[in-house]
Amino acid sequence: MQILMTQSGYDRIRDRLAPLAAGHQIVTVSANDVFEMDGRPVDPEAVNPEVVWLSLDSRASGLFRTLAVRLLKSPATRWTQVFSAGLDDPSFQKFMAKGVRISKSSSQAVPIAEYVVGHAVSLLVPIEAQRDAQAAHEWRHTPWREVGHTRWLLVGYGSIGREIARRIKPFGVDLTVVRRSKTETELADRVVTQAELPAVLPEADVVVLACPLTDETRGMADPAFFAAMKPGAMLINIGRGALVDEDALRAGLDRDQPGRAVLDVFATEPLPADSWFWDHPKVRVSAHTSNAGDGNVGRGDALFLENLRRYLAGEALLNEAQPREVGL
Amino acid sequence: MQILMTQSGYDRIRDRLAPLAAGHQIVTVSANDVFEMDGRPVDPEAVNPEVVWLSLDSRASGLFRTLAVRLLKSPATRWTQVFSAGLDDPSFQKFMAKGVRISKSSSQAVPIAEYVVGHAVSLLVPIEAQRDAQAAHEWRHTPWREVGHTRWLLVGYGSIGREIARRIKPFGVDLTVVRRSKTETELADRVVTQAELPAVLPEADVVVLACPLTDETRGMADPAFFAAMKPGAMLINIGRGALVDEDALRAGLDRDQPGRAVLDVFATEPLPADSWFWDHPKVRVSAHTSNAGDGNVGRGDALFLENLRRYLAGEALLNEAQPREVGL
Repeated sequence: MQILMTQSGYDRIRDRLAPLAAGHQIVTVSANDVFEMDGRPVDPEAVNPEVVWLSLDSRASGLFRTLAVRLLKSPATRWTQVFSAGLDDPSFQKFMAKGVRISKSSSQAVPIAEYVVGHAVSLLVPIEAQRDAQAAHEWRHTPWREVGHTRWLLVGYGSIGREIARRIKPFGVDLTVVRRSKTETELADRVVTQAELPAVLPEADVVVLACPLTDETRGMADPAFFAAMKPGAMLINIGRGALVDEDALRAGLDRDQPGRAVLDVFATEPLPADSWFWDHPKVRVSAHTSNAGDGNVGRGDALFLENLRRYLAGEALLNEAQPREVGL
Repeated sequence: MQILMTQSGYDRIRDRLAPLAAGHQIVTVSANDVFEMDGRPVDPEAVNPEVVWLSLDSRASGLFRTLAVRLLKSPATRWTQVFSAGLDDPSFQKFMAKGVRISKSSSQAVPIAEYVVGHAVSLLVPIEAQRDAQAAHEWRHTPWREVGHTRWLLVGYGSIGREIARRIKPFGVDLTVVRRSKTETELADRVVTQAELPAVLPEADVVVLACPLTDETRGMADPAFFAAMKPGAMLINIGRGALVDEDALRAGLDRDQPGRAVLDVFATEPLPADSWFWDHPKVRVSAHTSNAGDGNVGRGDALFLENLRRYLAGEALLNEAQPREVGL
């Protein structure tokens, strides 16, 4: 069988891949859509891979499209390891409609969790008040309600939600998790379904949207959602912009529901220059960059190698997507 | 025996104290140094307590001095539970010289750990760069070296060091601990003594001074200390100002050793209005307020009650001080 990947991905994992992929053909693609096998160019139409690795570098280099086209044209393709955790890009629906299994990435969960916990704790501990006192040369006592006394609500408990929970639970927070099934988890104090959101929202000091964008979740943060929030609470969105009704958020901020919003994703990206978000005093804006840690490539490589081992051994894949996740 | 405490401390713990202290006399003191027993005023000279509780409220109300005077005059006093974690105030040496056992507070370790982790992670995750991009209305990618890839050095591993470790280790950091004895701990990757500081300092991205001020530690952050720091590293001092040679720190900042300093304590407090610290672009100043969480009183009450139970049962006290900690 053929295994298709970018040349740069192959260069990174070559030594670790060799023992796994013995007897299989590695096909690589590099800039200008040059396909190679055993160091020699091959006709793209002769490439018919069973496995396609859509590595993180394929996005930056523009080779994602080349790989996706080849995948969709290849009768042999059965599995692809992708670089993203969210599958709302329409390509993924086409892959699955064709019968290709998809395993998602969990690589970006680590920096996203660092972003979420970093922003939240930097707002709960009065770092801004300390900065203001310093600027005024004032020796000022800055008391706070301890992080350990706050209640957190994680909407979504995939790889991102779990990495957040691992980092914030040791502070002693009360942690409620919203997920599709009420499977108990070690780190959460309670697990509820989306239908129970109205009951748990009023208690939460920090609400994190960490769920995929699906027909069920689109626009979930609507006027009723904000009206149910605890005044002064914090909203953090690292999921997708379309989870939030942005007009309803703006009206909510006026009433302090939420009191602060930390937003990495928006309905329109890049955020237009004239967006009200930029200058809103209660909003922190970042540029869909909460995933920009330096460990993603290394974790992505390790995940592909482990899933390839599992695929070849007929074992369950890590992070395999369900058809509903691509709207099928 | 008599147990002496503030009236406000007694009011908070009365119900929990009753079963523990049955058969003993509770003496309280309130504003204007009014001592009472069983709701009736008593002559201060008749007060001769075996146990004195120097609760956190005694500091704010000014009753600390009243209690300390009574303790020093009382032949019967054998044990005092104090509100502080550091024992550099000269009163504590006098207590111990008189043969009084001291148990320290661990209550403030929780907010101090929140302060340390909050400041550090808010600097490691590029929150400041995101803020600058937002102010400029720029949709800008802000990559960072993950917190999980940083190396931490905790100088001191008492209750504060442990609470920091519990919160930062789940990020995946590499953690070195400096303590008096090389006792291994579950959370640290390695434990070294102060003599080994020069060997481990150059590796650390985040250095936290969380040790008591003693003759051994006074001025430990001297020119050689800063010269050994990794360029760009972060120094956080939540111990005592006198741990640091402030002129050496200023010279170090000019060379980026450290690259940032987060300082809650200073050689002179309050920090003088003309101090260079206020406006230094690489320094975050706070007003000896890293302990200002809202849970200290509750934890202090619980600690006194638990230690009283232990004292009456003849068990080991939690956080009992050694004579060397007060310079004896």
